Formats: sequence, C-alpha cells, structure tokens
Amino acid sequence: MTDRTALAIDYIEQCRQRIDAELDRSIRQDSASERLQETMRYSVLGGGKRIRPALCLAAARAVGCDEEVALVPACALELIHAYSLVHDDLPAMDDDDLRRGRPTAHIAFDEASAILAGDALQTLAFSLLAGAPGLSDTQRIAMITKLAQASGHAGMVGGQAIDLESVGIKLNLDQLETMHRHKTGALIEASVDLGALTSAGVSQEQRVALANYARALGLAFQVQDDLLDIEGDTAIIGKRQGSDAAKAKPTYPALLGLEGAREHLATLLEQAQRALGVFGAEAEPLRAMADYVVTRNH
Amino acid sequence: MTDRTALAIDYIEQCRQRIDAELDRSIRQDSASERLQETMRYSVLGGGKRIRPALCLAAARAVGCDEEVALVPACALELIHAYSLVHDDLPAMDDDDLRRGRPTAHIAFDEASAILAGDALQTLAFSLLAGAPGLSDTQRIAMITKLAQASGHAGMVGGQAIDLESVGIKLNLDQLETMHRHKTGALIEASVDLGALTSAGVSQEQRVALANYARALGLAFQVQDDLLDIEGDTAIIGKRQGSDAAKAKPTYPALLGLEGAREHLATLLEQAQRALGVFGAEAEPLRAMADYVVTRNH
Repeated sequence: MTDRTALAIDYIEQCRQRIDAELDRSIRQDSASERLQETMRYSVLGGGKRIRPALCLAAARAVGCDEEVALVPACALELIHAYSLVHDDLPAMDDDDLRRGRPTAHIAFDEASAILAGDALQTLAFSLLAGAPGLSDTQRIAMITKLAQASGHAGMVGGQAIDLESVGIKLNLDQLETMHRHKTGALIEASVDLGALTSAGVSQEQRVALANYARALGLAFQVQDDLLDIEGDTAIIGKRQGSDAAKAKPTYPALLGLEGAREHLATLLEQAQRALGVFGAEAEPLRAMADYVVTRNH
Repeated sequence: MTDRTALAIDYIEQCRQRIDAELDRSIRQDSASERLQETMRYSVLGGGKRIRPALCLAAARAVGCDEEVALVPACALELIHAYSLVHDDLPAMDDDDLRRGRPTAHIAFDEASAILAGDALQTLAFSLLAGAPGLSDTQRIAMITKLAQASGHAGMVGGQAIDLESVGIKLNLDQLETMHRHKTGALIEASVDLGALTSAGVSQEQRVALANYARALGLAFQVQDDLLDIEGDTAIIGKRQGSDAAKAKPTYPALLGLEGAREHLATLLEQAQRALGVFGAEAEPLRAMADYVVTRNH
C-alpha cells in the first residue's frame, strides 16, 4: 500500500463518518410508514464505501471550498446510488440476495418495500439538494439538473437498461464502455461536478479538468469491479464472487483478458492523475482516491 | 351534466392536448436505451385523464398567471403520477394487468423495464422542474421542494406503503383518510400549489384557500374512485371493476355504506367550493374541476 492509498483510506473514513451522520439525520425525517423508513435506513446505512460522497467532498476541497458545504450534496449522491442498488438487486433485475455482506433489501424486508424504499430514496435525494445549506438557489438548481441528467434515462438508469439488454450478448470494448459510462460513470462524474459546483466561482478550466478526471476514474472503477468479481473474495467484496460470469455479463477481463484489463486499468489511472495537473496540493485527496479505486479489494 | 361539468370536461381536454404535446417533447430527449424510452412513452402517453396537470394550470389561472408558465410544472406532476402507477401495478405491489384500458407496463414490456421506466420518469420530473421556463430559480426550488415532499416517504410513497400494509385490515375513517391524504391527496395538493407558485406574488390567503380546496378535492377524488370501483364499468374506467373488493382493500363504501359514501362526497365537494370563495371568475376552471371530479365516470 502506497502512502497515498493510505491517505485515501483515511480520507474516505473521515468522510464516511460525516456522511453517515448526515444520512442518518435526513432519513429520520417524518415518514408515513415505519416499515418503509426501516427499509430506507437498512438500504442506506448498512455499510458501503461512500466513494461517491467522498469524491464530492474532495472535489469541493480541490476548488477551494469548505467540505462542509458539499456534505448535503454528497448525501444526495449516496441516496441515488443506494436507490439504484436496491432496485438493481430485485428479482426482476439482477436478482441478487447479498449486498454489502448482508441480505439485499427485498430479502430482508420484501419486494414491495424494496421498490418503495428505492423510490423514496430517489425523491429524498432531490429534496436534500433543494434545501442544501450554504448554497444559492442557482447553485442548487445547477446541482439538481446535473444529478437528474446523470441518474435518469440518459444516464444511470439508461445504463442499467443497456446492461440488462446485454446479458448473453458479446459487446465490443466501445459498447462496454458506453454501458459503463452510463451505468456507473455518469454518477461518478456528477459526484465530482457537484463538489465543483459548491464554488460559485469555479473556472471552466477547473470543471473540464475535473470532468476528465472523473471520466477516467469512473471507467477505472468499473474495470476494478470486474477484476474483483474474478479475483475477489465473497467475504470481503460483500457480494457473490463470480456473479458476473455466472450471469454471462460482459466484462473487461472477458474482453481484454486478465492482463489486458489490468493494463487498461493502469492507463485509466494515469489519465485521471494527469487531468489533475492544473491543481496543486488542494487536489491531493482526489489523487489519493484515484489510487485507492484501482487498488481496493472490495 | 351541469354546465360547469361540461366546462370542466372542455377545459381538461384543452389542457390534455397541451400537456400531451409537452410530455411527448420531454420524453423524446436522448435516452441510452430505446426499449427504456419506449416503456416510458407507453406509460405516460397512453391516455390518462391529466387531472393533476389540469389542476396545476387552473390554479395558475386562479392566481392571475399565464397557464403557459405552469405547463412544465404540470408535466412534472403527471410524470410523478405516471411513475407511481407503473410501480404500483407491479406483481410485487398491486399486481394489476390493466390500466387505462391497456396492458400495464410490466405486461406490455417486462418487469425490469417497468421498474426502470418508473425510476427514470421520477428523475425526469425533477429535471423538468429544474429547467422550467419563465420561473426564477427560487420558484423552481420551491416547486421541487413541494413536489419532493408530496411524493416521497412523507407523502405519496408513504401512502402506498400504508396501503400495502392495510390489505385485509379493518381501518377506521381516520386511518383511511390518513392513507389517502398521503397516497393521492398529497400529489393533488402539490398540483394546485405548483400552479399557485407560478405567481411570485401569490398571497398567503390565496395559498391557504387553494390548499383547503385541494385537500377536500383530494379526498373527494378518492371517494369517487372507490364508488367507481363498485358501480363503474371496466370498459369505461379502464381498470378491473371490483378489484379493490377482490383484494379486501379498505374503501369508503365498505366503511360508510354506499349512501354514506355518496353523502361524504357531497360534503367534500361543498368544502372544496367554499374554499374558493376568496376568488372571483379567475377560479372558474377550478370550480368546474371539482364538479367534474365527483361526477366523472372513469
């Protein structure tokens, strides 16, 4: 483990504590149904790496903002991520029974509760952004626009649809990247952009640099996910090892071979780090997180 | 049919044409998956009374605004309504195979497509509000806040959760009203409030009056829905007649008897009309719509 990876783990852990406290607070708000609220809490607060919120906080720091202002936007990103996991795990979708080392929401509760909890988590994400403290209404609107774009039919949900349509089909590298840019990349890019948008005075050059960083990181994240599905340990990754292969899902190792996938990962990491060249020490957490993403074991 | 009911039908039809054109335009935007987009279009554009958007337009007129400004917020309301129907119809939820006289989305497409289309329709609703023309960012944020509150775990989704938990349980009138205030009432209230919010200068008195109108109308809507489930014709109402009773769902007629439910409906209509007393002719479409809601046959 490099010093920078250790820094990232430390940084993510600090972020995780702040994010989890804020998420806990936001889901405590009045709910009409206790069971629904429990399902929401179970889906959001039961672990998770909090990589997206940590990226948001780190991007805010890179553009010279107090990470505190990025806290609520960071929670909104995690809520979108959490809702997508709950729905993706449903029997009609990926039909997974294990997530983050625990039964998935529809197993722990029931399918209807899982569908509704996912729906309500998405709503809560937009609700939080609309009331995010320390931001102007114009900044809030810019964030809502970005998050909606990244998570809707032109982004994350669209990517999940492509994914389901691709089971058993042999994709080429371009098609695989298109799927991942939508399915996971768009939300990772939004995570970094929402952090950047905490600064009303963020320059175009900074936003472009951060977008390039996020694009490479988003793909790197997926390549590492595919590698972990082959090489990882179910107990550590918290979901069934080998589950992609079992479903005949297209993956980078299947397309490029193990060695090819590892090389691709190294290239993407280099791209991500190079994009941050316009920043100084204030982007150190972002650099550390890129190192972390390609070396993580879960 | 009274003159005012005829006026309402005419008004709703005019609204429907404008709303449908705008919805069609908004779902044409880039999607990552053609099948996903088709499912979204099928779920939104296949008929529907458009009562919520029409209420939004009528409320805008009541506070002296051009209905044009309420068009995009009205579409956002319909998208939330449409997404909730798609998810409520799923096998794990109400398991309905017929909606608006056609197969439900998960029958016409498949379950995964229906789940994802519902998800993406919700996202699109917030996306539309964030970019609604002719409004300030502050108005857009107020609308997003209201819509999120009305449709999330403290509103519509919470109500659906109560509904699922109540099957086979004997609710009293208070409990039944609590469920409906959440499940359908909150979004109807939001429909009227979003219309009111198109006027930056709407008075507190006007908003309270409109909220009282909407609250009574929302309950009246549900009582009439329950009556239609008993007295209606499957071919006209577009969903299975008697489906509530078949599922042992609590209803107003089950609780109050047929005659009692009809009387309750009349009282609610009177409350709704009385609330509009502070308005003049500009609220005529709202008055007509209340008449329509209690006399509609589908």
